[in-house]
Amino acid sequence: MSNVSLYIEKIEKALENSIPALSEEISPVAEMLRYSLEGGGKRVRPLLCLEFCAAAGGDPDKALNLACAVEFIHTYSLIHDDLPCMDNDDYRRGKLSSHKKFGEANALLAGDALLTHAFFLITKAVAENDIDAENAVRAVKELSTLSGMKGMIGGQYIDLKYENTPASLPVLVEMDTLKTAALIECSCALGLIAAGADDIEISYARDFARELGLAFQIKDDVLEAQDGTDTSDVKNGKVTYVSLFGIEKAKNLAAIHTKNALEALNHFGSAADEIRMIAENLLNRTN
Amino acid sequence: MSNVSLYIEKIEKALENSIPALSEEISPVAEMLRYSLEGGGKRVRPLLCLEFCAAAGGDPDKALNLACAVEFIHTYSLIHDDLPCMDNDDYRRGKLSSHKKFGEANALLAGDALLTHAFFLITKAVAENDIDAENAVRAVKELSTLSGMKGMIGGQYIDLKYENTPASLPVLVEMDTLKTAALIECSCALGLIAAGADDIEISYARDFARELGLAFQIKDDVLEAQDGTDTSDVKNGKVTYVSLFGIEKAKNLAAIHTKNALEALNHFGSAADEIRMIAENLLNRTN
Repeated sequence: MSNVSLYIEKIEKALENSIPALSEEISPVAEMLRYSLEGGGKRVRPLLCLEFCAAAGGDPDKALNLACAVEFIHTYSLIHDDLPCMDNDDYRRGKLSSHKKFGEANALLAGDALLTHAFFLITKAVAENDIDAENAVRAVKELSTLSGMKGMIGGQYIDLKYENTPASLPVLVEMDTLKTAALIECSCALGLIAAGADDIEISYARDFARELGLAFQIKDDVLEAQDGTDTSDVKNGKVTYVSLFGIEKAKNLAAIHTKNALEALNHFGSAADEIRMIAENLLNRTN
Repeated sequence: MSNVSLYIEKIEKALENSIPALSEEISPVAEMLRYSLEGGGKRVRPLLCLEFCAAAGGDPDKALNLACAVEFIHTYSLIHDDLPCMDNDDYRRGKLSSHKKFGEANALLAGDALLTHAFFLITKAVAENDIDAENAVRAVKELSTLSGMKGMIGGQYIDLKYENTPASLPVLVEMDTLKTAALIECSCALGLIAAGADDIEISYARDFARELGLAFQIKDDVLEAQDGTDTSDVKNGKVTYVSLFGIEKAKNLAAIHTKNALEALNHFGSAADEIRMIAENLLNRTN
């Protein structure tokens, strides 16, 4: 019996409770946050946070504030990515993107607010006795590193830099490791921190997350190539795993990284069965 | 004998040391951060952080990482404020603004990176034994609240909202309290936290900072009106303290808020003499 749908329900409720009450003048900011947070998505990151907490013997409820912190970061990155100066996307998951709905300046502020509030949520985890101060400091360090210059933002920078220049395979791997895998790594690490796990245990989750992140990204390239939806990448002459290796080899590569990810889970034994299922579903997804 | 120039020297050096080493592909991000951090300015916020630490009997060196965290937040807010979708400023302190120098997308990322790294710097303060984990959590809470929706970002939102609509006096006060005073309050609070001060002591600093922040903002309006440099505000029909009260009354109002700020310092006795001097210099400044 899987806990996934129970966890997703808890996450949706916790996300809603993570948006603070604001004064009358500022309250529309809360609405902008709610609009983007309600965008849906698969909630892969907060789900992995709860799953790793449980796999290490922790109470997943104690990981909820940290899971929301990661989802706040993910959501801000989507808002800023959609801005005209970045990807200039009018739609996100079938809804108007934040800047199309609220204007560019407000979308910029909504993203900044989500980013900033992610760190508040870690202090909320302390205030609600989910975690102690030492573990909160570990969580702030993970989140600020893996979503910052040495993580997600670094990956976005590389992505911009090679927008019109073909990237080599090592650059492509560095970009995806930072842009996609780093925040997944953060989700897993924060879940383990909520369970009071030590750094050695977290290192297994890092291996898992990096491999899963690469598998996820390669699978993305494969799906887009099959769909013919990667028109922008193709037009820009952007290098992808498919353009480098062809579809079949790229599929094999995704399978190898998934296998590596699953092997890294051996440390957690059968407690990680649900994580195995999530990883396999991500690789076998069709959209 | 004033410590101000010694403190400024320490702050400049600490800011430089706060920028992390990055991989070859990402290292230009560090250059973008350095460019904006080196922009200069009076370093009022980090200076107040060190001064309050000293006034409460702490070692100001222990407040340096926290002081840099506040300056990182201040600097990101300037980069994002200068973007075309916000104030659209090509210059900042006589230098090209970040987006004019590096492009809009990179400036957006540089701002996000500064914001994110500010929170890393609080964990650096723990790693370097400046503060313990409990005080780090207090610092993260102050910084995320006072620079977030309930602080600086909230003030920026109100500013945008009333760009073309006259604001009432209460709205103007709420805007400036959030946009300007909140981050000054954060500087003072973080300095006191580095000294291990309790919440009651911090509450005196909050009163000081809010009054100083308002005095600072009113003085800004007065200087701009005298210079004739507030052309954009005048053109937009934007309400300022000068447009509401006239120059002389606005000057008096700034003096009243400065007096209130100085009174809030009484709690700290002569240990706050340097802070008194800084506050008076800010009110008496001519540019």
